[in-house]
Amino acid sequence: MRSIRRPSTRRGSEVTELRIGLIGTGYMGRGHTAAFVGMPGIFGHQPARPALEIIADVNEDLASSAAAELGFKRWTADWRELVADPDVDVVAITTPNNVHRDMGIAAASAGKHVYCEKPLARNATEAREMAEAAEAAGVVTLVGFNYLKNPLQGYARDLIASGELGEIIHFRGRFDQDYLGDPEFPHTWRCDKSIAGSGIVADGASHAIAMVHYLVGDITEVCGRTRIVFGDRPVLSGGLGLRGSAAADAKRQKVETEDTAQFMFTLANGASGSIEVSRVATGRKWALDYEIHGTEGALQFFGEQRNELRLYRTRDPANEQGFKSILTGPSHPPYDRFQPVPGAGLGYADLKLIEVRELIEAIAEGRPAVPDFGFGWKVCRVADAVLRSAAERRWVAVDEID
Amino acid sequence: MRSIRRPSTRRGSEVTELRIGLIGTGYMGRGHTAAFVGMPGIFGHQPARPALEIIADVNEDLASSAAAELGFKRWTADWRELVADPDVDVVAITTPNNVHRDMGIAAASAGKHVYCEKPLARNATEAREMAEAAEAAGVVTLVGFNYLKNPLQGYARDLIASGELGEIIHFRGRFDQDYLGDPEFPHTWRCDKSIAGSGIVADGASHAIAMVHYLVGDITEVCGRTRIVFGDRPVLSGGLGLRGSAAADAKRQKVETEDTAQFMFTLANGASGSIEVSRVATGRKWALDYEIHGTEGALQFFGEQRNELRLYRTRDPANEQGFKSILTGPSHPPYDRFQPVPGAGLGYADLKLIEVRELIEAIAEGRPAVPDFGFGWKVCRVADAVLRSAAERRWVAVDEID
Amino acid sequence: MRSIRRPSTRRGSEVTELRIGLIGTGYMGRGHTAAFVGMPGIFGHQPARPALEIIADVNEDLASSAAAELGFKRWTADWRELVADPDVDVVAITTPNNVHRDMGIAAASAGKHVYCEKPLARNATEAREMAEAAEAAGVVTLVGFNYLKNPLQGYARDLIASGELGEIIHFRGRFDQDYLGDPEFPHTWRCDKSIAGSGIVADGASHAIAMVHYLVGDITEVCGRTRIVFGDRPVLSGGLGLRGSAAADAKRQKVETEDTAQFMFTLANGASGSIEVSRVATGRKWALDYEIHGTEGALQFFGEQRNELRLYRTRDPANEQGFKSILTGPSHPPYDRFQPVPGAGLGYADLKLIEVRELIEAIAEGRPAVPDFGFGWKVCRVADAVLRSAAERRWVAVDEID
Amino acid sequence: MRSIRRPSTRRGSEVTELRIGLIGTGYMGRGHTAAFVGMPGIFGHQPARPALEIIADVNEDLASSAAAELGFKRWTADWRELVADPDVDVVAITTPNNVHRDMGIAAASAGKHVYCEKPLARNATEAREMAEAAEAAGVVTLVGFNYLKNPLQGYARDLIASGELGEIIHFRGRFDQDYLGDPEFPHTWRCDKSIAGSGIVADGASHAIAMVHYLVGDITEVCGRTRIVFGDRPVLSGGLGLRGSAAADAKRQKVETEDTAQFMFTLANGASGSIEVSRVATGRKWALDYEIHGTEGALQFFGEQRNELRLYRTRDPANEQGFKSILTGPSHPPYDRFQPVPGAGLGYADLKLIEVRELIEAIAEGRPAVPDFGFGWKVCRVADAVLRSAAERRWVAVDEID
Repeated sequence: MRSIRRPSTRRGSEVTELRIGLIGTGYMGRGHTAAFVGMPGIFGHQPARPALEIIADVNEDLASSAAAELGFKRWTADWRELVADPDVDVVAITTPNNVHRDMGIAAASAGKHVYCEKPLARNATEAREMAEAAEAAGVVTLVGFNYLKNPLQGYARDLIASGELGEIIHFRGRFDQDYLGDPEFPHTWRCDKSIAGSGIVADGASHAIAMVHYLVGDITEVCGRTRIVFGDRPVLSGGLGLRGSAAADAKRQKVETEDTAQFMFTLANGASGSIEVSRVATGRKWALDYEIHGTEGALQFFGEQRNELRLYRTRDPANEQGFKSILTGPSHPPYDRFQPVPGAGLGYADLKLIEVRELIEAIAEGRPAVPDFGFGWKVCRVADAVLRSAAERRWVAVDEID
Repeated sequence: MRSIRRPSTRRGSEVTELRIGLIGTGYMGRGHTAAFVGMPGIFGHQPARPALEIIADVNEDLASSAAAELGFKRWTADWRELVADPDVDVVAITTPNNVHRDMGIAAASAGKHVYCEKPLARNATEAREMAEAAEAAGVVTLVGFNYLKNPLQGYARDLIASGELGEIIHFRGRFDQDYLGDPEFPHTWRCDKSIAGSGIVADGASHAIAMVHYLVGDITEVCGRTRIVFGDRPVLSGGLGLRGSAAADAKRQKVETEDTAQFMFTLANGASGSIEVSRVATGRKWALDYEIHGTEGALQFFGEQRNELRLYRTRDPANEQGFKSILTGPSHPPYDRFQPVPGAGLGYADLKLIEVRELIEAIAEGRPAVPDFGFGWKVCRVADAVLRSAAERRWVAVDEID
Repeated sequence: MRSIRRPSTRRGSEVTELRIGLIGTGYMGRGHTAAFVGMPGIFGHQPARPALEIIADVNEDLASSAAAELGFKRWTADWRELVADPDVDVVAITTPNNVHRDMGIAAASAGKHVYCEKPLARNATEAREMAEAAEAAGVVTLVGFNYLKNPLQGYARDLIASGELGEIIHFRGRFDQDYLGDPEFPHTWRCDKSIAGSGIVADGASHAIAMVHYLVGDITEVCGRTRIVFGDRPVLSGGLGLRGSAAADAKRQKVETEDTAQFMFTLANGASGSIEVSRVATGRKWALDYEIHGTEGALQFFGEQRNELRLYRTRDPANEQGFKSILTGPSHPPYDRFQPVPGAGLGYADLKLIEVRELIEAIAEGRPAVPDFGFGWKVCRVADAVLRSAAERRWVAVDEID
Repeated sequence: MRSIRRPSTRRGSEVTELRIGLIGTGYMGRGHTAAFVGMPGIFGHQPARPALEIIADVNEDLASSAAAELGFKRWTADWRELVADPDVDVVAITTPNNVHRDMGIAAASAGKHVYCEKPLARNATEAREMAEAAEAAGVVTLVGFNYLKNPLQGYARDLIASGELGEIIHFRGRFDQDYLGDPEFPHTWRCDKSIAGSGIVADGASHAIAMVHYLVGDITEVCGRTRIVFGDRPVLSGGLGLRGSAAADAKRQKVETEDTAQFMFTLANGASGSIEVSRVATGRKWALDYEIHGTEGALQFFGEQRNELRLYRTRDPANEQGFKSILTGPSHPPYDRFQPVPGAGLGYADLKLIEVRELIEAIAEGRPAVPDFGFGWKVCRVADAVLRSAAERRWVAVDEID
């Protein structure tokens, strides 16, 4: 007779456990947690399994309730305790940009692997310091440019690297959203330069710059402009960030960071490019788009249809040339771990899960993760170059940035 | 001085725990588990929290390893033990169709709430028996028509119910995939009538019929045709279902279930409709589409762009009439629980999570879940009517089906 | 010194002139004229040049003013005179359906080549008589299924005929418009059975059936339904057809012809298919769409994006499979006569011009035009089978129709 | 008894005839002719009717045969004769850019109305001279920016001008084609600076700049870059322009004009913008696209789907916000002259016909046409500013250009 048994292998010695210390209980904190928790269901417990150890938030109530809700063993209101805790292997940073530097350096210096949300820091100097600290400590780092984890981006990168598109001529990118399109939407921390570093350059442009670097290589010079479209906003009175609200009679607070930015750029291989980003792009919700022209092919990607990549090949017969809409499928790993047939679509949370998988695997294998702090620093340098170019109305070489 | 503390509320008395017994360790078993596990991160622990109690699979190795990997406390190779276990509150059924009936009736009779994958059963008779057993037992039931859980479908349903589209004239639906488009793809259990009940009617059409019933009401008569396009397939020699493979010299096995089906139908309100489904629809990956014409508006939905609903209103000014592409956003609950801004996109797993939320909430609130076994039975009746209509080449009233 | 000279070759003996007698001065009469006039600019004067000889309309004023405006040499209010005129080589029929038969037979019997708008006649019997009369007279005939003249349709046909898509499995077609979607739009001749023969079956379905026959072969049996959605309409008081209007207090007139139709069908090769047509398809303006599944590929076409054909090939590498959007270009003749590069787009008038070119060339070369009256008759037989099937609620073989 | 009569009103005294002198027999020459000939069929003979008087081409054979084929009364190899001819009312210039200036000034000075293809001239200086000559002569002028004649652009312009989109924040435009994407495509006159003035700036950018000026106002400063991607090409040995060909062993000729250009710009109202143009944009055929963000709405237009405009309004209810795809229809005049229902689609030739209608009507009404030489001059100034900016790597005010 068969009976119900307890799994003998559970928490067995062969499964490495990586204990997570998470800083931040907001939208991104929850996103990280969901990814840590969901990972084994998709990828199994090998090579290591995340365990929710400590969660930190300056607000004690939030820390305490998040620990209960999300399943962390412990909580603290002091991130320095978390970073120092001997039972933490990985520190995940999901706070606003202004504290990334201190947290990242402290964590790396304490020998923890570090998983930090983007942008890596408020500016290139901070980012460099973080990358140097991690390098010195020999820990694994990863920056949360989760859109790079879309299986179609890996496929696109391979196509380009293999020369299937010929020589790259031009890269056109954008990341347009309208989350601050309403001038009555309250002032958030992203409007405050001392916290965010910059506005849409730190937020949207960092994703777009990361995409360029990931797909076609390093940007060497830029010429851009920025603009604050709505100069003040109602003071925030409730909620946080994009879930914030303001009282009807709220006073207004000055917006210090740019709403839109556009810039032209040159790639190391001599190709040209351009990026446009906005948080007031009326009607656009998630337009992290690109179009890449090569001498033998082209690619198009639209962030609002993120499960589709469009490929054009000049070698097709003349009467059969066109952009082909390729839906993510099992031949674009690791989609195969999610679904056996194409077209099911991965969501935002799935990309975050793939990102966490990369972190865990890199730690287990003792290799750098992609994209690491060094990559994050490069992105910050380009962002700083854009801001300087806009301020000085001239082309700026990325090498001018520290 | 602040310090790291254990959450006092965790597993506190105020959180109800619903203990899950899951039958099946395959693709769908994992999908259910991910949804149970991920739910609190999105919705919190209220009104109840799923706990992974027992997992069952006829294959002992699969049961045991899945328990370890997915985090179930216990496992068994005998689903009857799971169903009878006093520490199980909810039985989740993710096996092939042929055992849904026995499992569902046993679970309901044991007083368990039942969450069953679609189609509810191989035919309407089995489905009726299940619905009756659940009714008699007074348990909460839910059938896994997860596409109904897309927030845009709830929005569409509300639009229609409120009369915003006027009187519904016509519903055109489809669910086209090509997962068996390759005639050399191996014979799977879905090709076996005794296991699956039917082919694409049980699989794709049940989703499409569910969509009709959910959005515009009950189907009263049908006239259809079915076709087995590829009459035999290589015998399966490795893997399972859509992840199966066959040896190069495999013998061939007869396909007993239809590859394609089309049918016209009439709705209770007199409107017309049609549905086409296929598992050999070359090139289509997840085309669960519809277009609905009303006297004052229309809707379009494309399953391969599932984060978009297209709405047309006749009341718009003449020079401004057109289909509007609405991206899922916070004003389409519960998307707001996932993301603060529109356009991020929900994935397959997210829909399953919303489905599980409906189950848990219905149990906690002591109300029927949507869609329940009664709904699943209705879908099976229409499916049976289609099969009969195809066999007899005539219009068949759904009332002719038991 | 160079000077301004008159062209010596103009109206020279080597250019054959085909003298046109056009019946009807409405929308279609103008469309034919534009095509006759514009043809030489695109194709030159070879092998023959249309000359506008006579225009006829029962309304003397319309005939007279249209002759002046459009550039016809002569006009008449009696189409029988036009048909009998010795200086007419080609008779073009653009009147409502009820007089096609008499005009077509008279013209053919008088030895004129005949260009007739679709549907060829009100029913298969009339169409057969016309085809027989033309056959007996040995004249060239052409039916105005202008959408077949889209260069992409010729390309699609060649792809299918060459076996590039493998064996055809299924054809899904539609022609949805909403030109009568407003129940207050006035009663037009298309609502009158004695004039139009039928409603959307004669109008939209005839185009869709023609597309099936042109691309994948003959339909052998059908099972369909039809529906009059709006049972009466205001009496027309001004304007004509789709440019008509009704007085605010207009009496209402019964609609005798169907607003919508759907039917399933079988092709000669055993493949299945379906067509749905509507003139009350809210929001759809010109949805003459199809999707064709073959064992080795698929095609999609959307009438509202008529300069694009989407092609899928199963032979593409797994990670590169998808529908490719092919824009009409110079490698899809005769687009090359219009534009040197792809993507400029052909309009409705351009298709009509290509149609006229086929007529002129067929006459000059003494070969049948495509599609001729025989083809038009076949379309009428399928249409009649659909109407009978809908009336008798059963599958009807096309051979049952006379 | 009724009989066949000759139209009494034909060539009657009440119809004004405008006699056309056309310079150039190539692609554009034919396009102009088709528009002149087809116009009355769509718009009638009022207020004036074009008559094909003289055609000129330096190549006598081309001039002579084109006259015969297209129906011009006379021909000449000397455009100066055409311009001086007393029986010519309108001079249409369809030659390469280098002779626009001389022809335009001669024609205007001779009192002829002038219809000139775009760009108006090779540079702003030439364009200014033309505009001044026309101004002095008091003749009507029109520049062939035919894409502005798309009925949807008039609709877009009205929407913006009426404030329906609020204040304009940003204009993003492009005109990407790949007609020179193949490095083996022969050297054409557009690669020769002395003939074309510039490359894709004169060709594609002039259309895009015209669109900006037409829709949202004047550009005041630019910062751009240009690039010659393929430095030499095979010498042309047969055919002309985009229909040219080269021998297999052709020598190579230096390309003097830019293949791609990108520039940022500022509008008079302070809004920002950007334009990217290319003739080597792999895969793109006719991507004259734009996206406009206003504080209360947004517009999208895609040149490869030119019968569709996408409109977003912030005033829509939150759950119903999205871009609406508006198909050209009768409520976007003068589409109503072409078709009674929306969605039929206008082709390239139809836009040219509307352009000619504007010219004829402006002449008849004694008013300036839109867009006239003054407009064409402004476009040239912006183009020159872009070229200077690219050369000097700095922002250039348009006022710096003569």
